[in-house]
Amino acid sequence: MSQYRVLIDANDEKGLVYKVSSVFFENNLNILSNNEFVDKENNKFFMRSVVDGVVDPSELKKSIENVLPKHASVEVIKPRKKNIIIMATKEMHALGDILIRHEAGELEANILCVVSNYDLLESLVTRFNIPYKTISHEGLSRAEHEEKVLEYLATYDDIDYIVLAKYMRILTPRFVEAYENKIINIHHSFLPAFIGANPYKQAYERGVKIIGATSHFVNNNLDEGPIISQEVIHVNHAYGWRDMQRSGKDVEKVVLSRALKLALEDRIFVYANKTVIF
Amino acid sequence: MSQYRVLIDANDEKGLVYKVSSVFFENNLNILSNNEFVDKENNKFFMRSVVDGVVDPSELKKSIENVLPKHASVEVIKPRKKNIIIMATKEMHALGDILIRHEAGELEANILCVVSNYDLLESLVTRFNIPYKTISHEGLSRAEHEEKVLEYLATYDDIDYIVLAKYMRILTPRFVEAYENKIINIHHSFLPAFIGANPYKQAYERGVKIIGATSHFVNNNLDEGPIISQEVIHVNHAYGWRDMQRSGKDVEKVVLSRALKLALEDRIFVYANKTVIF
Amino acid sequence: MSQYRVLIDANDEKGLVYKVSSVFFENNLNILSNNEFVDKENNKFFMRSVVDGVVDPSELKKSIENVLPKHASVEVIKPRKKNIIIMATKEMHALGDILIRHEAGELEANILCVVSNYDLLESLVTRFNIPYKTISHEGLSRAEHEEKVLEYLATYDDIDYIVLAKYMRILTPRFVEAYENKIINIHHSFLPAFIGANPYKQAYERGVKIIGATSHFVNNNLDEGPIISQEVIHVNHAYGWRDMQRSGKDVEKVVLSRALKLALEDRIFVYANKTVIF
Amino acid sequence: MSQYRVLIDANDEKGLVYKVSSVFFENNLNILSNNEFVDKENNKFFMRSVVDGVVDPSELKKSIENVLPKHASVEVIKPRKKNIIIMATKEMHALGDILIRHEAGELEANILCVVSNYDLLESLVTRFNIPYKTISHEGLSRAEHEEKVLEYLATYDDIDYIVLAKYMRILTPRFVEAYENKIINIHHSFLPAFIGANPYKQAYERGVKIIGATSHFVNNNLDEGPIISQEVIHVNHAYGWRDMQRSGKDVEKVVLSRALKLALEDRIFVYANKTVIF
Repeated sequence: MSQYRVLIDANDEKGLVYKVSSVFFENNLNILSNNEFVDKENNKFFMRSVVDGVVDPSELKKSIENVLPKHASVEVIKPRKKNIIIMATKEMHALGDILIRHEAGELEANILCVVSNYDLLESLVTRFNIPYKTISHEGLSRAEHEEKVLEYLATYDDIDYIVLAKYMRILTPRFVEAYENKIINIHHSFLPAFIGANPYKQAYERGVKIIGATSHFVNNNLDEGPIISQEVIHVNHAYGWRDMQRSGKDVEKVVLSRALKLALEDRIFVYANKTVIF
Repeated sequence: MSQYRVLIDANDEKGLVYKVSSVFFENNLNILSNNEFVDKENNKFFMRSVVDGVVDPSELKKSIENVLPKHASVEVIKPRKKNIIIMATKEMHALGDILIRHEAGELEANILCVVSNYDLLESLVTRFNIPYKTISHEGLSRAEHEEKVLEYLATYDDIDYIVLAKYMRILTPRFVEAYENKIINIHHSFLPAFIGANPYKQAYERGVKIIGATSHFVNNNLDEGPIISQEVIHVNHAYGWRDMQRSGKDVEKVVLSRALKLALEDRIFVYANKTVIF
Repeated sequence: MSQYRVLIDANDEKGLVYKVSSVFFENNLNILSNNEFVDKENNKFFMRSVVDGVVDPSELKKSIENVLPKHASVEVIKPRKKNIIIMATKEMHALGDILIRHEAGELEANILCVVSNYDLLESLVTRFNIPYKTISHEGLSRAEHEEKVLEYLATYDDIDYIVLAKYMRILTPRFVEAYENKIINIHHSFLPAFIGANPYKQAYERGVKIIGATSHFVNNNLDEGPIISQEVIHVNHAYGWRDMQRSGKDVEKVVLSRALKLALEDRIFVYANKTVIF
Repeated sequence: MSQYRVLIDANDEKGLVYKVSSVFFENNLNILSNNEFVDKENNKFFMRSVVDGVVDPSELKKSIENVLPKHASVEVIKPRKKNIIIMATKEMHALGDILIRHEAGELEANILCVVSNYDLLESLVTRFNIPYKTISHEGLSRAEHEEKVLEYLATYDDIDYIVLAKYMRILTPRFVEAYENKIINIHHSFLPAFIGANPYKQAYERGVKIIGATSHFVNNNLDEGPIISQEVIHVNHAYGWRDMQRSGKDVEKVVLSRALKLALEDRIFVYANKTVIF
């Protein structure tokens, strides 16, 4: 007996729940949990089921595809530890939170490596027995530096997600396209407010009473990828921008870890630059 | 073409989603939204579907019952304005919020009447063209007063819900049993903390940093019925108990209106002194 | 014995708390509450004290001015009901919340009148014995319409605040300058995100996971005045933009009423397009 | 030039702000921030000022005491890293969060040692170069075990705070009295709800829609000490008690770290089994 996560993304039509659940029934599978969503505007159907039973996953995938409209996407996933790469720069809070969760066994993930453009976090990372790779950007153009990072990442066979834990360099389209919907970023603002550099300073200047953080998949438009999770905290006039930054760190790490957890549990669908999350 | 809300509460067994959705498919019904939950501990299956099509609702109910295990409960509900009675005492905030929502057309409800043990709110209520009935408790025992209220309520054929909008009198088992899972109360604390009289004073004495409010169905044990919704706000040392009470009112009205909306939209299942809410 | 609210806004220098509190002491005043804030970046000192005693308020103001640096602003305010005008268009939720709070005695305010460009809300308002003035914009240029509104407002001697409770017309600089830092608006987004028309549609398109509302003083740049209060709620993929709009209303009314309460209690200082709130 | 934190706790009387600020003025001290609170019910005055200047702290303390009523408590504290002991049992999340914050330089603290009744967390702690002391309770009575812990703690000269980061053993009055208002605990519930064992299971059984965590100083009555900070998260019917426990960990670590930070910054006054926090 094994569990499988079945993820379906199809054009909507009448009877999809019936047709898919009939496949589960014929295969004698038990449905442990089940979520559907129909986006009427885009005529799209999304379904995530967790099923339990004895089945060949590739056969199950084919059987489901057979009852769905053309061009449907079906994934039958046996839960396993995903392989992730973390990229960071100098700040410790978001990376540290993931390291502790990993150590505590909270994450369905193997951390293959932490990659940084500085060596500042090496001492922290290596004491968790996780490889640390410094690829300095000094003296290199953006393209040259990124080329070296991509080469290094290519030494890993199977990367499920790349987590940007306050990696403070902008990725080029080449990088982003190589890992489409696999790069999870934490942006230190409540997007789409304060896109770009030093959002806390922008927030302070504007006199906002709430600040936030946003985790999102990275696409070619900086800070404009599909949003996974957001959270906020209240601030007041007594917060200078550095106080906002300090308090913001607590929100950043919470939001990034939450987004990572959702990804590792195969709960996120991406379409139309948005996410459906079950 | 009509919409129906289908609510199913059954013992769990394999294939329930398949069986129910096959009935929808055979009846050529379109599923607009669909939620299921299995409580493994109690082996219970809950499902709420909104379907669209041409069907005889009592036939649909029978067809669904035929594919379910024995003792399953099935409701097929055509959305309509529910009939509600509001009971209040002296305070205006929770009642006023419902009156404004009703006036704005936000509620799927007809307010049949507001019943109070004082006449203080009569001027407010009647200007909304809603009947107001004062049934004073003065000089009466609890049983006598309640008897008069029950007699008055009995003049209405069809009461879907009774909303206690800060009705400050305790209901006897006789009353509660007459309207089982139909009486929605707002309790001015974050239950189960501070059960009983003057929760704000209790909260102040204890020095809590958060206060809240709880909406729940009323059962025979005071303040111990199934919880529908809860919300909180942060407070600090500068709040005296009257400040907590004042701030608490904003939470109370939000939570009560939220619970009422969930009930009016047939989103709440009650079992094991808890709620499942879709 | 009377209470006074003392509001001080001055350039910062050493000894201000001492100097001001010495004036209180010499006048035999009891300090009931006291808040100070120094904005080091702008070298500004803000103080709000509530004092209790027998004193001539204009003498007290002079005594305090005498111990402060030049150009300081001092207000000594005897708490009284402020006179407010509410402006609205078609929506009832924010206006209704203020009407109920007013009726319940929660607001330190007299509502002089509700002004609208439609007559849709007249029936609601007049049943609270509050005058309602429809000034239609049909067939008029923006300037012409606003001229008529200003003329009408000029018939009132003493307007403390104008509350835009979902008034859906843009005010010109002429109007704004006539009531500087006296016009409180509710913007149906979490500013500065989604400035401008239909923020809920913008938020939906962007796929945000949190929506919010912002109350602010109105200045010449649309939606860019000093922020008083903000609040948010979580949403998800199942929210269409109309669902966001519906849920957003609950946040809007909470935030507007909160901002109004702060203004009525003389708790807000405005400077540098920001607010200091005690 | 040095900064000092001045903490005053006195019976209230007229002129205290004036008298204290006159001492600051005479000593040519600059007030960087200033907070006061008067508890009228208990006739108590609390003040926390951060001042800047050249002064002998013990002289300053005396000068302030001279202007205050009898029995006033005055502390003049030069900010320094406080010495803390962390006590834990098996769980890693709360401890790990503190370790990472400490490593990142976010805490004004030296971690002298982590003490546990198991050796499970030793590998984590020692890789941060922090001593770990296992004092097993096996085969010992509560009193015997605690005696050994107290003996070990006595080897440290100067312990400012003891942080119970999910230390799952009950402390006896003897222990608590030895470190009055110095022991900070995280309780895995929204106190005073669900006092005692397995609060998550209690919360699940009760069907609550919000769970929380509470940090508090420990006194002789289990879970009834002065509350420092509380936080909550929303849950729903789909959360089993283990899901609540898992989600609760994120709240627990946030609340404990927040309370610790407040203590390290000398922001907490304790009286009447409550806290005043500036």
